[in-house]
Amino acid sequence: MSAYKELRKEELLALKSDLEAQYEKVKAKGLKLDMSRGKPSAAQLDLSMEMMDILNSSSELKSEEGVDCRNYGILDGIKEAKELLGAMIEVPAENIIIYGNSSLNVMYDTISRSMHHGVMGSTPWCKLDKVKFLCPVPGYDRHFAITEYFGIEMINVPMTPEGPDMDMVEKLVSEDEAIKGIWCVPKYSNPQGITYSDECVRRFARLKPAAKDFRIYWDNAYGVHHLYDDDQDYLIEILAECEKAGNPDMVYKFCSTSKISFPGSGVAAIAASKANLDGIRKQLTIQTIGHDKVNQLRHVRYYKDMNGIVEHMKKHAAILRPKFEAVLDILERELGGLEIGSWIKPKGGYFISFDSMDGCAKEIIAKCKEAGVIMTAAGATYPYHKDPHDSNIRIAPSFPTPEELTQATELFVLCVKLVSVNKLLENK
Amino acid sequence: MSAYKELRKEELLALKSDLEAQYEKVKAKGLKLDMSRGKPSAAQLDLSMEMMDILNSSSELKSEEGVDCRNYGILDGIKEAKELLGAMIEVPAENIIIYGNSSLNVMYDTISRSMHHGVMGSTPWCKLDKVKFLCPVPGYDRHFAITEYFGIEMINVPMTPEGPDMDMVEKLVSEDEAIKGIWCVPKYSNPQGITYSDECVRRFARLKPAAKDFRIYWDNAYGVHHLYDDDQDYLIEILAECEKAGNPDMVYKFCSTSKISFPGSGVAAIAASKANLDGIRKQLTIQTIGHDKVNQLRHVRYYKDMNGIVEHMKKHAAILRPKFEAVLDILERELGGLEIGSWIKPKGGYFISFDSMDGCAKEIIAKCKEAGVIMTAAGATYPYHKDPHDSNIRIAPSFPTPEELTQATELFVLCVKLVSVNKLLENK
Repeated sequence: MSAYKELRKEELLALKSDLEAQYEKVKAKGLKLDMSRGKPSAAQLDLSMEMMDILNSSSELKSEEGVDCRNYGILDGIKEAKELLGAMIEVPAENIIIYGNSSLNVMYDTISRSMHHGVMGSTPWCKLDKVKFLCPVPGYDRHFAITEYFGIEMINVPMTPEGPDMDMVEKLVSEDEAIKGIWCVPKYSNPQGITYSDECVRRFARLKPAAKDFRIYWDNAYGVHHLYDDDQDYLIEILAECEKAGNPDMVYKFCSTSKISFPGSGVAAIAASKANLDGIRKQLTIQTIGHDKVNQLRHVRYYKDMNGIVEHMKKHAAILRPKFEAVLDILERELGGLEIGSWIKPKGGYFISFDSMDGCAKEIIAKCKEAGVIMTAAGATYPYHKDPHDSNIRIAPSFPTPEELTQATELFVLCVKLVSVNKLLENK
Repeated sequence: MSAYKELRKEELLALKSDLEAQYEKVKAKGLKLDMSRGKPSAAQLDLSMEMMDILNSSSELKSEEGVDCRNYGILDGIKEAKELLGAMIEVPAENIIIYGNSSLNVMYDTISRSMHHGVMGSTPWCKLDKVKFLCPVPGYDRHFAITEYFGIEMINVPMTPEGPDMDMVEKLVSEDEAIKGIWCVPKYSNPQGITYSDECVRRFARLKPAAKDFRIYWDNAYGVHHLYDDDQDYLIEILAECEKAGNPDMVYKFCSTSKISFPGSGVAAIAASKANLDGIRKQLTIQTIGHDKVNQLRHVRYYKDMNGIVEHMKKHAAILRPKFEAVLDILERELGGLEIGSWIKPKGGYFISFDSMDGCAKEIIAKCKEAGVIMTAAGATYPYHKDPHDSNIRIAPSFPTPEELTQATELFVLCVKLVSVNKLLENK
């Protein structure tokens, strides 16, 4: 089929009437589906059930260093957990602090600490007139929610296929001392599935920020979350790169096992330079009696080493891959050539990012909802929920069953067509 | 033996020489003991080992309400965990939010949130010139560390056998709007083991604070941590009492299973009015993807109900009781009648509080350390580590074995005698 924009008004009207009839038919089915959340499916969670057998009442719950993991003590994580997560994110164990179950919480904490205590001795941000963050867009809504919550002004930086627009990033951070950070999901980015290029990472490492307490917030959420064995993105390790560039303290790297073992019952970590970690430990001493070491032990004994994680992630991929492909196939089959939307085929991560014609995303999502399919709210991938083009839609294929996914995507493409036709008719 | 203060100089000198000889003998043994930390012993941790068998790879990890505890979702805790911890602290489940593994972290979070976002809409504390907290003394060092970390001015309030000096509390909170809170360990208090009297709790509930955002920080750390079956303290439930008094929002109550199951791998909670909890949930949405629900399930399925907790706590008591009694027996036998120290015999909790003659605590602790026994640092039970009398020493009998405890306490009383004799000689 040819591009919608080439159609004459009568053709569009005929199409509209046809699409509306189809829509009413689907609506009558009373679907109740959800493509909004980057949640693993039950089948994926089943992959880790044997982790529940790893520790039992006969287990010796001592760490390699002889620490009784059941008791108080060890603020920043047992050694073998640091090693495992270190291997996973390619950072030496001594550059790691192990936290609780949520890397989002670690990021929140990092911002919160900077607000009231500054960064490695800098002025607490709450004492400053203005604090700003750069936000590559589209991006992760919960990053933006944290900075919004703390009253930090967010500045959109457009994503390119190589990563954020680095010309803009370099210019802004070197000129404006109020810019204290940038949110990054550098591998299989949320929502686009883009992995930052080597050049992009190197430019990050060589940034010359005006603010001494500027940090790159490197959320390595999907570091090992490939969809394919033989076609994977590779990301340069940022801590080493920053050190080489003479900026060893400029980055915080975050990760967790949330989408490896169980979301909510995994292990999260931060990686950073020794100077950064020393600052963080000062706060940790005040904040907590330490995180759950038994769960750290459970994870280490189950996955054993990096190879265990890699093998485990292949099983996740085997479940996720057909789901991503089902969505992409329908998008291609139904929308290919129509020029009413574009999308990126990711090699990993949890999302497919779809861009509709300008001014259509809200309406498409509303139409989907009306017919029983929940999509991520329009604007969610932008700071303040404001997508300036009203075009980005995040599709999350992981949670529904393949059948549900097919139904939901069929409805989605129908809504894209219908809303696009209406939009085109406005100008005829 | 008669009181040391009645002894003549020559007698004291003879005593000193005898005590010094004893001290050198003990020192030569090269002890390495620790009576500083309120840590459960390995034997106590063994009591909960069967909890490790409760969930296995065949378990249905769904909550009573059908929530898959392995996945994302449920920000404030599964229903049955709220019920269990609610029963434990005598509060309805709907007044509970379940957190991660550390109630200290919940308290830190509560203060941190108040700093940058205020309390139920009040001015964020970081925008105020001065924020003050009342600190019943002696008290819990980690409470004081949190308020100190946030630059909150701490005001000492003396403890009485009935709880904090309520005349002083009432006067201060009603007069000074900068006073935003008071730290309380109302049952088997840290370190004295005092339980607040009915009248004391009622006076708390009827406080008329000048600050609308004043809260009582009620750390119910030892609510079920009795030493005796037949001789237990009873504490009035503060939430209900505050509600009766027309102050429903005036209290945050904290608890955890840290000293019930495994420290560091337990479940913590806050209890408060609906209005308070609604405010907290707003932050939680931003802060985390939720806490570890699998561990919540593990605890609920292991303890089942309040009765399960009560029975379990009897086993802890059976291990702790002889340890407390060993220390108390030695104190009584060696120091009784000497009038160089006083202590309280607690019915629960984790500590014995010892008061030396004024100006002796630091020296006693140093002497203990010199001979290989670590005590809690002098001043630790006071804000800013400043014990104005230099007299309070916290004894933690839980972790050492009974044999170690006897050795350590023998040394302790020897040091008390020696330092007291030296002190008395100063004025002769």
